[in-house]
Amino acid sequence: MLVHKIEEVKNITKNWKDCTIALVPTMGALHEGHLSLIKKAKEVCDKVVVSVFVNPIQFGPSEDYDKYPRTLDKDYELCSKEGVDLVFAPSPAEMYGEEQMLSNNTLTFVCPPFFYVNKLCGKTRVGHFDGVCTVVLKLFNIVQPDYAFFGQKDAQQVVIIKKMVHDLNVPVKIVQCPIIREASGLALSSRNKYLSNDGKKNALALSQILNNIRACYKKGITDIAALKETAYGYLTEKHDLEYLEILDKNTLEEQKKADENSIALIACRVENVRLIDNIYLGE
Amino acid sequence: MLVHKIEEVKNITKNWKDCTIALVPTMGALHEGHLSLIKKAKEVCDKVVVSVFVNPIQFGPSEDYDKYPRTLDKDYELCSKEGVDLVFAPSPAEMYGEEQMLSNNTLTFVCPPFFYVNKLCGKTRVGHFDGVCTVVLKLFNIVQPDYAFFGQKDAQQVVIIKKMVHDLNVPVKIVQCPIIREASGLALSSRNKYLSNDGKKNALALSQILNNIRACYKKGITDIAALKETAYGYLTEKHDLEYLEILDKNTLEEQKKADENSIALIACRVENVRLIDNIYLGE
Repeated sequence: MLVHKIEEVKNITKNWKDCTIALVPTMGALHEGHLSLIKKAKEVCDKVVVSVFVNPIQFGPSEDYDKYPRTLDKDYELCSKEGVDLVFAPSPAEMYGEEQMLSNNTLTFVCPPFFYVNKLCGKTRVGHFDGVCTVVLKLFNIVQPDYAFFGQKDAQQVVIIKKMVHDLNVPVKIVQCPIIREASGLALSSRNKYLSNDGKKNALALSQILNNIRACYKKGITDIAALKETAYGYLTEKHDLEYLEILDKNTLEEQKKADENSIALIACRVENVRLIDNIYLGE
Repeated sequence: MLVHKIEEVKNITKNWKDCTIALVPTMGALHEGHLSLIKKAKEVCDKVVVSVFVNPIQFGPSEDYDKYPRTLDKDYELCSKEGVDLVFAPSPAEMYGEEQMLSNNTLTFVCPPFFYVNKLCGKTRVGHFDGVCTVVLKLFNIVQPDYAFFGQKDAQQVVIIKKMVHDLNVPVKIVQCPIIREASGLALSSRNKYLSNDGKKNALALSQILNNIRACYKKGITDIAALKETAYGYLTEKHDLEYLEILDKNTLEEQKKADENSIALIACRVENVRLIDNIYLGE
């Protein structure tokens, strides 16, 4: 079932009082990564809701909100094949009102802590995680799921959403699912569509760098500067590195040495497409 | 029943699935104003929860958090007499964690829009309404009430909470209840306890000013500057006026002329105790 209105969602889910409900929040342009979340949700819950919403308030003014891929017909078909019970695809006006200026002058925002935001993607994407937390909490309040499913690909996002759920006592369990990759190692992303064939080849550097860091860690290297330095062999003039960090996977705190709780995270532009990836060193 | 732990509240309320649940959030030091909210809640819902929590994150560093009256035994007795089903009185550590620094560096906050915050009490109480919205959303998520009851006394607070509920799709209905006054006209407030007998007499100026503004409006005066000027006859050197405003009661927008949607709001210190009051001109 495909619905566009908040009230319709509420009318449907109120008949599911005796079911466990899963929410898989997406921005559409669904790929195997999203489908892995949906499959997991089907395993865990009686009813699965997928939201498809390109959320304007999580894009900066110079970002790709307008050109972000929108493929609702195909997304709905994929969801139907997976047995999704409800696809919720609201308009921006449905979510934020017709005349909403979408600024913190006129809209209530959920603001995650600076400590979690002022690093990694949050450093360049100012306000991004405020927009993410705000829309995720709205979706939680509309759908009232028991479980919500997020991909580890957006590692900082998952940590921040778990923190929001903890801090605000949100009655939803967060399930984090592993990154899905092409056979080449490239992490799936809706933004991969922007890449040429050459770009996709150059994009392999991200997963190669992370795999190599993990291999070095497994060999006993725990010095974080040394582990990060191993990246430079993979980077060419085709790569515009934004960050490469090794942090505590649960708190995003800096560590003195890499350990079994470390995560390595990278953001790099290829053909001016911003790509991110990460890996747990302990796995 | 008096409980102090979040998990206890959840265990109790999950057995109330077929009941409508009311929440009356308070900071304790209960007076007839709070009791009027509880009575209304009893009328509307099957189960009534009263929270008693002096919320540290809504007090500024120079405000009265430490000396704010705490009278839990008496509050619990009053609630029991009114037939309240559950009194939830958590510690700050239960709400925010033992080591929580209670800043937006480490804690997720709910931030109402600047337009609603940057006036009236929000102008001098910086961060106050972020703290209010954050704790109210936490309490909503813990108790999961159908209805929540707030007094019109804190008029800006009610407008901001209604805005939060709207913006974040919070599944709780907000019920606003009238101000309760002493026979003298003084609006009830837990902070009235700080006043001497002389202070209480001087505090009458607030309700007198508001009543007179409404009387003038009823006589046909709609010029806002003229209405505000009528206040000065009531103010002495015992009064430290913080603000006197006439605004739209639903949006807190400035108006060209007073009308049936106007609210007059005043904040004034007497004996260095900050008192607030308000009145609807159309009633």
